[in-house]
Order: sequence, then structure tokens, then C-alpha cells
Amino acid sequence: MFTLPQKDFSAPTTCLGPACMQDLGSSHGDDLEGECSRKLDQKLPELPGVGDSAMFSPDTSYLSSRGRMIKWFWDSAEEGYRTYHMDEYDENKNPSGIINLGVSENKLCFDLLSWRLSQSDMQRVEPSLLQYADWRGHLFLREEVAKFLSFYCKSPAPLRPENVVVLNGGASLFSALATVLCEAGEAFLIPTPYYGAITQHVCLYGNVRLACVYLDSEGVKVKGLILINPQNPLGDIYSPEELQEYLVFAKRHKLHVIVDEVYMLSVFEESVGYCSVLSLESSVLPLFPRCALCRLPDPQRTHVMWATSKDFGMSGLRFGTLYTENQDVATAVASLCRYHGLSGLVQYQMAQLLRDRDWINQVYLPENHARLKAAHTYVSEELRALGIPFLSRGAGFFIWVDLRKYLPKATFEEEMLLWRRFLDNKVLLSFGKAFECKEPGWFRFVFSDQAHRLCLGMQRVRQVLAGKSQVAEDPPPSQSQEPSDQCR
Amino acid sequence: MFTLPQKDFSAPTTCLGPACMQDLGSSHGDDLEGECSRKLDQKLPELPGVGDSAMFSPDTSYLSSRGRMIKWFWDSAEEGYRTYHMDEYDENKNPSGIINLGVSENKLCFDLLSWRLSQSDMQRVEPSLLQYADWRGHLFLREEVAKFLSFYCKSPAPLRPENVVVLNGGASLFSALATVLCEAGEAFLIPTPYYGAITQHVCLYGNVRLACVYLDSEGVKVKGLILINPQNPLGDIYSPEELQEYLVFAKRHKLHVIVDEVYMLSVFEESVGYCSVLSLESSVLPLFPRCALCRLPDPQRTHVMWATSKDFGMSGLRFGTLYTENQDVATAVASLCRYHGLSGLVQYQMAQLLRDRDWINQVYLPENHARLKAAHTYVSEELRALGIPFLSRGAGFFIWVDLRKYLPKATFEEEMLLWRRFLDNKVLLSFGKAFECKEPGWFRFVFSDQAHRLCLGMQRVRQVLAGKSQVAEDPPPSQSQEPSDQCR
Repeated sequence: MFTLPQKDFSAPTTCLGPACMQDLGSSHGDDLEGECSRKLDQKLPELPGVGDSAMFSPDTSYLSSRGRMIKWFWDSAEEGYRTYHMDEYDENKNPSGIINLGVSENKLCFDLLSWRLSQSDMQRVEPSLLQYADWRGHLFLREEVAKFLSFYCKSPAPLRPENVVVLNGGASLFSALATVLCEAGEAFLIPTPYYGAITQHVCLYGNVRLACVYLDSEGVKVKGLILINPQNPLGDIYSPEELQEYLVFAKRHKLHVIVDEVYMLSVFEESVGYCSVLSLESSVLPLFPRCALCRLPDPQRTHVMWATSKDFGMSGLRFGTLYTENQDVATAVASLCRYHGLSGLVQYQMAQLLRDRDWINQVYLPENHARLKAAHTYVSEELRALGIPFLSRGAGFFIWVDLRKYLPKATFEEEMLLWRRFLDNKVLLSFGKAFECKEPGWFRFVFSDQAHRLCLGMQRVRQVLAGKSQVAEDPPPSQSQEPSDQCR
Repeated sequence: MFTLPQKDFSAPTTCLGPACMQDLGSSHGDDLEGECSRKLDQKLPELPGVGDSAMFSPDTSYLSSRGRMIKWFWDSAEEGYRTYHMDEYDENKNPSGIINLGVSENKLCFDLLSWRLSQSDMQRVEPSLLQYADWRGHLFLREEVAKFLSFYCKSPAPLRPENVVVLNGGASLFSALATVLCEAGEAFLIPTPYYGAITQHVCLYGNVRLACVYLDSEGVKVKGLILINPQNPLGDIYSPEELQEYLVFAKRHKLHVIVDEVYMLSVFEESVGYCSVLSLESSVLPLFPRCALCRLPDPQRTHVMWATSKDFGMSGLRFGTLYTENQDVATAVASLCRYHGLSGLVQYQMAQLLRDRDWINQVYLPENHARLKAAHTYVSEELRALGIPFLSRGAGFFIWVDLRKYLPKATFEEEMLLWRRFLDNKVLLSFGKAFECKEPGWFRFVFSDQAHRLCLGMQRVRQVLAGKSQVAEDPPPSQSQEPSDQCR
């Protein structure tokens, strides 16, 4: 670990253009679901030290200072998400409701998943599933997870169940890892722009900060590096060489590396190769060829996350897993798992799902990838037709879209105004500030939704941009509320 | 709130005999499952301040100081529970394995529960259950919880879904409440002996302490009072008058009152009346009859917990709920629920279960109570025949047993030796130190198990006590390994 600033600070970065600065005193962009954005006029309080009770308004005096900080994160969840939930689009019941292209969920395969989860092999209810069990997860499930990850991550040797801890989702895992790896006030590095919800996940219980790879904070002790691969919101996939570069950098500074591979099976472009950190052959650090302790990936400091929320489109199922060879870390996380446990019945279902390699390989993944690709192609072509630049890498559920030319001035206030114009026209997006992007004007478009909703959402986007390009400060035309016949 | 010591400190207590002192520097008694006891020779480190990194051994230097503390709780989980899991009794496969009368689980009704959970109405898989949902819990479930608690707690007015937060178990709820109500280092009062696992629940994430009602700690700021009703391990049920006395005391000192009613439907003696804190009519504080803010129970400081782990014998299902009228507290807990969420599928099943009032009232509760009563009667009669004093109150899954006369000296070392003698004779119990009992020699016997296991467990207890009474320091006779024909 080290304390920033550092002179030899030279981590590789995936940042788009000039990397973003993380201003810990300013607004952070994640919401109730950790995906949408937040009102820019609501300030994140300084992450409080314990007992720092004067920081929040006295009207919530029943709560501790950290309780008020925790509540603040909820209350400041952006208007978009709240507005969305009060006015959700429904083809029949509420056709003028809001289309949600803001939350990164895969809504393309509920038919396949509902079918699979309704099969008779899922319905086991037996006493052992209803009783207290190993907090690391039932052994039968950890065995399946180890086999599953060995296969899909192409590990050179079989992964081991004793290195697996299962819990109720990736958010919990970030919370637990931050707590057991860092002291309060320490930080993880994260390439930026990044999935903004991680800010809360490491902070609410753990009081740990995130520091962007380029940053000007002082005196923050950095304990680790978080990589999301495929990246969110960029969709980038790290090449083996890039991964190696990160690992060398981390090793040199004795940093933990948390690799979140939650989109690893959502690479829908066949031409794109995906390389899990678990697939890397163990190698020696170039600088220290004779050092037996200097192996990469560092077995004691590499912690891999995966979950079913994205790759199996089940964010409401709450299943995630850690893979680490560091038994101290596995044990400490397991000790916290009494607060992150999932039902024995769900553990059984997940074991059944993960072991059904035939269905996954022959039905689910081909169909899921084909649907993701079609949806991605549709949104890409719409954007091209509009002459809008965008990034997309053939992975994930989103396209990182450059709407800078639609901002009269390059400020985050203008970005927010444009975002609100979209929302007023009943389409929810995520703005770049929510990902700590440094440049105003970038938006994340989630495309993993049914065609008719996607079509209607893009129609509403077009209306706003057309209105915008015609009369910069005017509201969009009022006909935007009706669904189009083309979107059925 | 106030800082101890206080001159007017006069809380009522349910402590048995002289109440227990909590020595924060000594061993704490909860284990992997929070129910069994821990080796006395392993010392709980002082609860560390943040960054207090010199406290733990350097061999786990990958972890933060709090990570090492968290791991310590896991590692020091007592030998009994670990030994039990390596040698679990099974009637056919391992008849000489260990009988578990240590963990408070109800194993009497798996037949009923398995049947109910296997019915077709439980198998719903629909997209909304697989997607991100309200972190407070799906509304359909919170509505059912409100109706359920209104009915079974006999609330004077219908309880409201907006005051309900559901999450994955009581442990998580203690963790979340401790964090949002207290600063690090502050404390909750708890009548002692108490369910020892709460020590970890409030400490691991929240760094909050427990202070026994009689205590000599200094300078600890007390923020609240925890009541478990029916009590664990005593089985006591608070009368309405006792509850009122606690509430007055708490109100006077501006204390939050957390009432854990996790055994509320496990009152199996019909003659025993149970009074939920939610059943109390709102009244004014006797000392301040004209103060509109002085109502009891204090609506802003009363937080009620319930879960299915005990009353529905499903500790592995991970379902718990908070009921509080304080919307700040509900919101702050909900904000932490992203780390304590439970599957949408399980939420659906729980709503189905809780709304099935016919099955609960006409099948499950009568049968469960009859089986609990029979098991309780059996163990009580065994203890009476042995001339062993015990406490039992017609509620809960356990009997608080006075084995003081079997200790050659009144020390916790002797208590531990006796406990280990039970374990060597293949029966796991919980010793009093695990509940911070001040007097050595008390044990908790869990009776909510199938007759043949209970019979065999009691036979093994008798063997140890007989051996003990004959030759105080000798191991039990070796024939203890065989199951008895009487126990089929």
C-alpha cells in the first residue's frame, strides 16, 4: 500500500479522454439501485469520521452521525429513479410512463430464466436447507461455483471450493471486502469513469473511499485497486497484457486487486476475446524473476467477484460469490456473511442452475447473446443515424454515448438539464457525472431491454435531441407522450 | 442517552440471581451460529478503534485491524460447534455422532414446513421477482408482514407497511440498527444473561458494545436497551407491567428500545400470556402526564424485530423484519438493506406463508406447540428425576439448567471442564458464560428436537452427570457411544 500523492504513480487507465477527478466533497452519482444518477445540487457530506455528529441536520437526531450519512445516501437517491418508480412504463396500463434505460439490468431473457427456475429440480425443500448452515455457503453450492468458474473463466487448474464464499450479491461483497481489507478512511483506486454505486458499497459500513486513478487528493492511504471487467460504463474488456500491467503495478505497491467480473458471460460479440484474471497462468514478476513470493496474479492479494445479477439477468435473486486464495480474507468475509446470507432454498436453486451446463451452453448463453447483440445493433444504428459518437465494445448492457455537442456549455449543470429533459420526455438515462466522468456530456444508454420499450425509449431520446437542436432551451414537443406504432 | 455510571441507574432486570458483569476484555460466548459457546482461553481483543493495527498478530497482515477482529470471531468459534460439524449424529450413518442440544433451532416441524413450502402457490417465478426491487422489501410482502404482526401481536390499530423493512435475518437487523443508531464505541444495555451472538452482531460492522444492566464499565455512552421477549436463555416472558417499567426507564433516559420478539409464536404453554410491545395501547408517561411528546411506547424510539428463524423453524431461510414508526430509522436501515437483501423468490414465498392464516392457526401453530410442549415435558421430567433445578417458562426452545452442584469449584474453568465432558460424551450444550452469566454452572439445554435424538442426548447427559457424581475427575463410561434402544 502507499499514501497518495506518489511520484511514480503510473497505473494504466481505461479512462476516456482526460481521466476524471474524484472530488470527495461533491455529488456522487449512484442511487437507490446504484445505477442512476443523483441531483447535482445535493452535496455528499465529507465522509465523516466516527462521532462527527455536527455534520448533518439536527432534525434526524434519532440517528447516529453515520446513520444520518447512510440515510443521506437514500434520501439523495436521484429524482430520476424515484420519478421512474412512480410512473413506470407499462405497455397496456401506462403507455405514457417512463422507459428505463438507466438501470443496468438484462430484461431480455426472463422467459428462459422463468422456465428454467420453474423446473421440478428447483423445488427441493429439505431440512438441511432450512437450518443454519456454513456461513461461507453450503458446500454443495461452493463446489458448483468452483466448477462453474473453472470452466467459464478457463482456469489453468481446477478452482477449489474452499476458496469460494457465497453471499447475497456483489454490493455485499464490496462492503465486506472494504471492511476487512481497509481501515476507515483508507481508499481503493478505481479507473474512472466507474460504476458509481461502489462509492456507497465501500463507504456505508466500511467508511472506505474510492480514489480515481488520476487524482489530487492528499494523504489518503491506498489499499487496493478495483477492476471491473468487462468495464462499466465503458464496456471495455481488458486484454491479457493490460491485466498483467495492472497486476504488476498492484504488486509493486502491495495493493489488493479486486476484480469484478460480473459481466463476464455477457460478452456478446464473438470476435471479442474475454480473459478472466482466473485464466492467467501464474507467472513471476518481471522485476523480480527469482522471487518465489512475487508471483502474478498475487495469490494473496487477488480477489475475484462474480454474481448472477448481470450474466443471468437476476439482480433480484441476490446471489454473488468471492473467489480468493487468501484464506484470511475468505474467513474474514465469511465471518461477515452472517449479515449477507442467502436462503438455503436459493442456494440449492443456484447450484442446480450452475451445474446445468447443457442448458447454459446450448440454450441460455447463445440466445442471450443473440438478443443482446440485436438490441445493441438497434441502438447503435439509431445513434449512427443521429450522428452521435459512442463507445461500445461488444460486452455488457450499455453504450457510452457522447452527447457533448448537445450541451450549450460544457458544464455538469447543462448535463443535468439535458438529463432532466430526457426524464421529462419519459425516458430515464444515466449521466456521466454519476460515473465520476470528468467531461460533461456523456450518458450511459442501457440497451438490454425488450424491443418495443427500446424503440419507444429511443424515439423519446430522438425527440429531445431534435427539440434540443432546434430550440436549445425549449421543452420537447408534447406529442412525446404517446407510444409509437413502430415500437410494437 | 447517558454516560455510565449513572447514579439513578435503576433499570429493571430479568437477571438470574446477581446479574452478570460484562468484561469487554474477556471471552464472549457466541459461535459460528451465535448459539454455542467459545473456548474460555481465547481472549476477545479490546474492541479496536479504527486504525488500531498493532492489536492483532502480524501473520494476518493482509487484513485491516478490524478485518483481523472480524476473523478472530470466526476463528475463535468454539471447538464444540466445529467438533459437532465434523461428527454430527445421524441415526443411520453416524449413531455415535454428537447430539446437538446447543443451537436454538426448532427441528420438530420440518414435515409441516416442507409440505407447506412445496405447495404450488410457492413456486411463482416472475420477472418482477428477478429484478431490482425496493430495498425495504417488495410492497406485497411488507403488506403481509404488517397484517401478520397486527394479528399476532394484537396491535390496537392496524400496523402499516411503510413502517416495515424486511431483510435477511435478525443478525443483519442488529447490525444495521447498531450502525444507524450508535456511534462507534457507544453501547446498548441488555439484561443478562443474554443471547451471546448479539455481541458480534452489533460489533463486527458497527463497532458497538453491549453493556449488561449491572455493570462497572466507565464512560460508555448508552444509546439504547435491547429486550428479547420471550427471553433467551431464560425463557422469561415480560408482563405488560414489566414492559411498561422498561419503557418508562428508557424514555426517562432517552434510550432507544429494540424489542426482539423472535420467539413470540413459540409460547407453547396455553396458560402463559404473551404481550407484544406492539400490543400496548399508547399511554402517557406517568411522570409527565401533560406532555404530548411523552407517549409510551415512544413511537420514535421503539423498534421491533421478528423473523421466521425460530417461530417457523427456518433459520436457514434468512427472513427477518423490522417494525418502527421512526421513518428516519426505517430509511437508514433500508439504505443498508442493499447489503442485507433477500431473493425476490423468497420474498414471494414468505408473503404466501404469512398470509395463510388458516394453515398457521389450524395446522402449524397447534401442532408446533404440542410438539414443543411434549419435548419440553420430557426434558423437564428427566431433569426432575435427576434432582436438577431448572428454569422454564413455557416459551422458547430451551431450559436454563442449574448444574452448579456438579462443579467441584464455582469457577468458569470448571464450567468449561463439565461442558467438555458433555462434548466428549457426544452431546453439545451451551454453557452459561456464553450468555455472560455471572454464576458458573448454568447450562442451556435446547429441547426442540426429535424424540429419539432428545432421548439419546439426555441419556448421554445422565451418563456424564452420573460419572461426574461418582468420580469427579474421571471421563464418562465408554458405553456412552452407543445409542440406546429406548431412544428410538
